[in-house]
Amino acid sequence: MELFNKYKNLLETAIKAVHERTFFAAFPEHPSPKIYGETADEEGLQNYESHLGKQFDELLQEGATSWSGSEESPYLKESLNITYPVTPVEVLIDNSEKAFEQWRKVTLERRAGILLESLEQIKKRFFEIAYATMHTTGQGYMMAFQASGPHAADRALEAVAAGYEELKRFPRSAFWVKPMGKFNIQLEKEWRAVSKGIGVVIGCSTFPTWNSVPGLFADLITGNTAIAKPHPGAVLPMAIVVAEIQKTLNNNGFDPHVCQLAIDNETALISKDLAENDKVKVIDFTGNSEFGAYLENLKGKQVFTEKTGVNSVILDSVDDIDKVAANLSFALCLYSGQMCTAPQNFYVPENGISTPEGKVTFDEFAEKMKEHIQLLTGNSKAAPFVLGAIQNEKTYKRLAEVEQSGKLLLKSTVLDNPMFKNARTATPVVLEVKAEDKDLYGQELFGPIALIIKTKNTDHSIELAKELAMTQGAISCGAYTTDPDVKEKIADQMALAATPVSFNLTGAIYMNQNAGFSDFHVTGGNPAGNASFTNPEYIIKRFTWVGHREPAQI
Amino acid sequence: MELFNKYKNLLETAIKAVHERTFFAAFPEHPSPKIYGETADEEGLQNYESHLGKQFDELLQEGATSWSGSEESPYLKESLNITYPVTPVEVLIDNSEKAFEQWRKVTLERRAGILLESLEQIKKRFFEIAYATMHTTGQGYMMAFQASGPHAADRALEAVAAGYEELKRFPRSAFWVKPMGKFNIQLEKEWRAVSKGIGVVIGCSTFPTWNSVPGLFADLITGNTAIAKPHPGAVLPMAIVVAEIQKTLNNNGFDPHVCQLAIDNETALISKDLAENDKVKVIDFTGNSEFGAYLENLKGKQVFTEKTGVNSVILDSVDDIDKVAANLSFALCLYSGQMCTAPQNFYVPENGISTPEGKVTFDEFAEKMKEHIQLLTGNSKAAPFVLGAIQNEKTYKRLAEVEQSGKLLLKSTVLDNPMFKNARTATPVVLEVKAEDKDLYGQELFGPIALIIKTKNTDHSIELAKELAMTQGAISCGAYTTDPDVKEKIADQMALAATPVSFNLTGAIYMNQNAGFSDFHVTGGNPAGNASFTNPEYIIKRFTWVGHREPAQI
Repeated sequence: MELFNKYKNLLETAIKAVHERTFFAAFPEHPSPKIYGETADEEGLQNYESHLGKQFDELLQEGATSWSGSEESPYLKESLNITYPVTPVEVLIDNSEKAFEQWRKVTLERRAGILLESLEQIKKRFFEIAYATMHTTGQGYMMAFQASGPHAADRALEAVAAGYEELKRFPRSAFWVKPMGKFNIQLEKEWRAVSKGIGVVIGCSTFPTWNSVPGLFADLITGNTAIAKPHPGAVLPMAIVVAEIQKTLNNNGFDPHVCQLAIDNETALISKDLAENDKVKVIDFTGNSEFGAYLENLKGKQVFTEKTGVNSVILDSVDDIDKVAANLSFALCLYSGQMCTAPQNFYVPENGISTPEGKVTFDEFAEKMKEHIQLLTGNSKAAPFVLGAIQNEKTYKRLAEVEQSGKLLLKSTVLDNPMFKNARTATPVVLEVKAEDKDLYGQELFGPIALIIKTKNTDHSIELAKELAMTQGAISCGAYTTDPDVKEKIADQMALAATPVSFNLTGAIYMNQNAGFSDFHVTGGNPAGNASFTNPEYIIKRFTWVGHREPAQI
Repeated sequence: MELFNKYKNLLETAIKAVHERTFFAAFPEHPSPKIYGETADEEGLQNYESHLGKQFDELLQEGATSWSGSEESPYLKESLNITYPVTPVEVLIDNSEKAFEQWRKVTLERRAGILLESLEQIKKRFFEIAYATMHTTGQGYMMAFQASGPHAADRALEAVAAGYEELKRFPRSAFWVKPMGKFNIQLEKEWRAVSKGIGVVIGCSTFPTWNSVPGLFADLITGNTAIAKPHPGAVLPMAIVVAEIQKTLNNNGFDPHVCQLAIDNETALISKDLAENDKVKVIDFTGNSEFGAYLENLKGKQVFTEKTGVNSVILDSVDDIDKVAANLSFALCLYSGQMCTAPQNFYVPENGISTPEGKVTFDEFAEKMKEHIQLLTGNSKAAPFVLGAIQNEKTYKRLAEVEQSGKLLLKSTVLDNPMFKNARTATPVVLEVKAEDKDLYGQELFGPIALIIKTKNTDHSIELAKELAMTQGAISCGAYTTDPDVKEKIADQMALAATPVSFNLTGAIYMNQNAGFSDFHVTGGNPAGNASFTNPEYIIKRFTWVGHREPAQI
C-alpha cells in the first residue's frame, strides 16, 4: 500500500478532474528547465543519442530470439540503427498468460500504485522520449515533448483514474436480506471485477505513446496483462515506456511480463498473429481503417479502435476573417496535417461568409487562407518547428497526386529546415473543390492538404460535413458562426454524427488540440473509431462483473 | 417537471439500490389483496378474459394494415383468438423516426417522469398481465404474477435508474481555463449525450415482459425510440405494457410512437426486417443462440443479447444432503426447467459427496434427487403451481428424445392439473451421464431435464463446468462445498468463465432466482449473452458522449 498512499491524492484529484472536466494536468506541458531541471533537455538528447546504432537492452522480458529495428528519422532520412529484442508471438503469449495469473489477483490499490509510479519514472525520461518521437514521427520539438511526454502521461493517468473509479463502482460484498413475511432470506453476496485476459495495444507511426498509453494503462489497471506492439517506424518512444513499466513492476516484486513489448521481425508483421491468438481478449488499435475494420470483425475479442476520418470546417459567419484564416492555417500546418484531428475540408457557401463588414466571397476566403499559410510557412524561425517533418514517404507522394485532382490554389513546396538539411518537409497544398467532387474530398487525404469546397449555403455545408462524418468518420470539426440558431443546428447535427465541434476558435487554441481529463478523444459513435479516451465504456469493456452469493452465516 | 417530482424519491432510492445492491423492491411481489386491493385478482382475470377472441385495440399507434395473432394457452391447448394490429416495418420505422426527433430532445427529467408514470399505470394491470402470462408461457400463477408484474417492473425501474445516473455522469457544461503563463485560454465546453436512434426489443416466449422491459426502458430513458417485437407465442403481456406506455406518452403531450408494438404477420416473421433496417441502431434480443449470433454480427448496430447456456451444479461437500437434493429438485421443477437460470448438469465425483456422516455415493445422490423430485411432483396441491405447463410442443418432444440418450433414472410423466385438464405438462427426466458424453450434456436441453454426470473429482467437475460456460455459455451455477479452499477455487474459476455462482443454497431460495437491483442477470462475459441487466455497459452503449467547445465570452 506504500505506493498507493504515495499517489492517493493524485489519483483522487484525477478522478475529480475526470468528472468535472475542467482544466487539469498532472504533468507540466512546458519543457522548462525550472520544472524539469537545468540539464534535463541536454541529458535527454544525450540519452536519446546513446541508443543510436545499438541494441535496446533495457527490457526485462525473456524469450527473445533475434534483434530487429527499422526506424528512420524523417529529419535526417537516415536509419536510427536501433534494434529491439524480437520475442516470438507464442513466447509473448506464454509470458503474458503466466503474468496474468499473478496480476489479475493483485489488489486494485497495488495496481494503481505501480502504474502511477511507472508514470513518475517515465516522467524522468520525457526529454529522451521527445527526441525519440521527433526522430521517428517527424514532429517538431515542442509537440514531440508535449504529446509523447506530459500529454500522454496525463492520458495514461486519466485511464488509471477512470479505471479505479469503475472498479470501485459496485461493492465487493453486500448483505442481502429479503423479508418473506414469517422469515427473512439472508444472503452474503460478493462481486468480482473479472479481468478479460491478455491485451494487445497496436500503435501508430505519428503519435507512438499518446495513442497507445491510454489502452495500455486501461488494460493494466483492470487487471489484464498487456503487450504493446508499436508501429515499426516508431518504436523507441514506446520501448522506453514499456521498459520503465517493467522496471517498476520488477522493483516491486511483480512479474515484468505483465507488460511486454512486441517487435515486428524483419520478414513479417506480427499484429495479425497477436490479434488472432485465442488468448488475446482485448485489442487497442490506432491506424488505418482497413486494418481497424479487420480487427473489429474478429470474434471473441474486445476491440477498441481509432481509425481515420475526414475532418470538416464549416464557415458561416465570423467577426474577424483574418483571425479565422490565421487560426485555420495554423491548424492545417501544425505537424504538417499529420494529426488525426487536423482539418481537411473547408466548406464555404457560394455567396460567401458573413462578417460585420459584409460578405467575404469564396475567392476572398481562399485567398486569405493562402496568405496566412504563406505567412506562416515563410516565417523561417517558426515554420520548421510548427510543420515538423513528413513521417512517411507515402504522405509526401500523396501531395503531388492531390495537386493534379482539382483547381490548385497553392502548391506544396519543400520547407527549408536550418537544423536538418535533409528533412522530409512539405508546405500545405490548397485546392478549390466543387461540392459534387465527393470522390475527392469524401476520403481522408492524410497530410498537409486543404480542400476548400464551394457549397450552396451553410445548410448544405452542414449536410456534407454530417454525411461524411457518418459515412467516413470524423474526429474533430471546426465551425464559425455568429448566429446562435446556426450554431445550435451545427451542434445538434454534428452531435448526431458523433463529432465534437470547436466553435469560433481564434488565437492560440486550435481544433486539433484535445485536452486530457476534459475532451473525449474520438467519440466512438462514427466510423473514425469505436472507442473514446476516456469514457466509461473504454474501461468497462475490459472486465466483467460477476456476482456470487451464499446463505449468510448468522 | 410535475411527473419527475412525483417520482424523484423513488428514482433516488432506486439509484442508491443499484449501487448498494442490498435488497430493494419498489413493486411488492406478493399478489396480496391487502396490497393490490380486494378485487384486483378477480378484475385482472376478467380483464384478461375480455381480450379473448377479440382485437386488441388499446394501442395508439397508426398505420396498421391487418390484424394477426397466434397465441395458444399451454394450459388449455386452445387458441386465445386475440389479434393485434399488424403495422408494416417501414411504417413502424417512419413513425419511430418522427418520434425520435421529438423524444431525443426531451429532458432527462421529463423522460424519467414519463417512464416511471408508465410503470405506475402498468402496476394497475399486474393481475391481468399475470393471467396473460400464464396462458401464453405456461408459468404457474405465482411466477406469472411476480415475473411479469413486480419483478419486471423492478427491472424496468432499475434500467431507468441506471440510465438516469449514467446520463448525469458528466456535466452538461464546464468552464475550462488553461493557464498559458502570460494569458489564459478560456473555453466554454458542453457535453451532449446523443441518443443512437431507433431501438428494437425482440422478446421470448417464456418471460415476455421480464426479459424485454429492461431493454425497452433502457432505450427510452437514453432518448432512443423503441419498437417492441414480442414472440408470436406470447404477445399479450407486452401489448399491455406498450399500450400503457403509449397512453402515458399521449396523456403528457408526447408522440405515442416513441414506443410501438411490432407484430409478426401471418405469413412472415419480421424480426430480420426490423433488425436489418438502416435506421435501427440498437437491438435487444432474448432467444436462441443462432438468431442471437446473427444479430450480434450485424454491422452498425449496438446489439444486446441473452441467448442460451448450460447451467451447472458442482457437488463437492454438504452439511445435509436431503436439504440440498430438495433445493435442487425444486430448482429443476420450477416452471418445468424452462427458466434460463435452471440447473441442467449436476456434477458428482465418482467417489461421492462428502457429508458430516461420511460419503454419499453417486448412486445415493441420484436416488435422493429422484426421491425429492417424486415427492414434489407427487404433491398434487403444490406441483401444478410449481411446474406450470410446457410452453412449447418442441420442449415436450425433447423429453422423449433425451430419455433415449443415456441411463434413464427417472422418466418424465404427465402431471395432472386439476384446474386445467388439457394442460401440456411434464415432470422432469433424470439421466445418469458419463463425463465422456460431452455431446449430450454439452448443449442446452431446454425443459425439465437433469443430467447427473459422474466426474473424477471436484477439480474435474469445476473444469467441465468452466469449460462449458466458456464454450456454450452459462447464466447461473450452483455449487455445494463446505471447504473454503474449494469454494474459492470454484468462485475464481467460474468467475473467469463469467458465471455467477450460488453457493450452498438450501431452503426457500434457488439458483434460478435473480433479484433486481442486486444480481446482475447474465454477465455478458460468456456465450450465454453479451449483455447484463443492468450493468453500466447496458446503458452506456445506447448513447454517445459528444463535447463541443467555444472560446468563453468574458
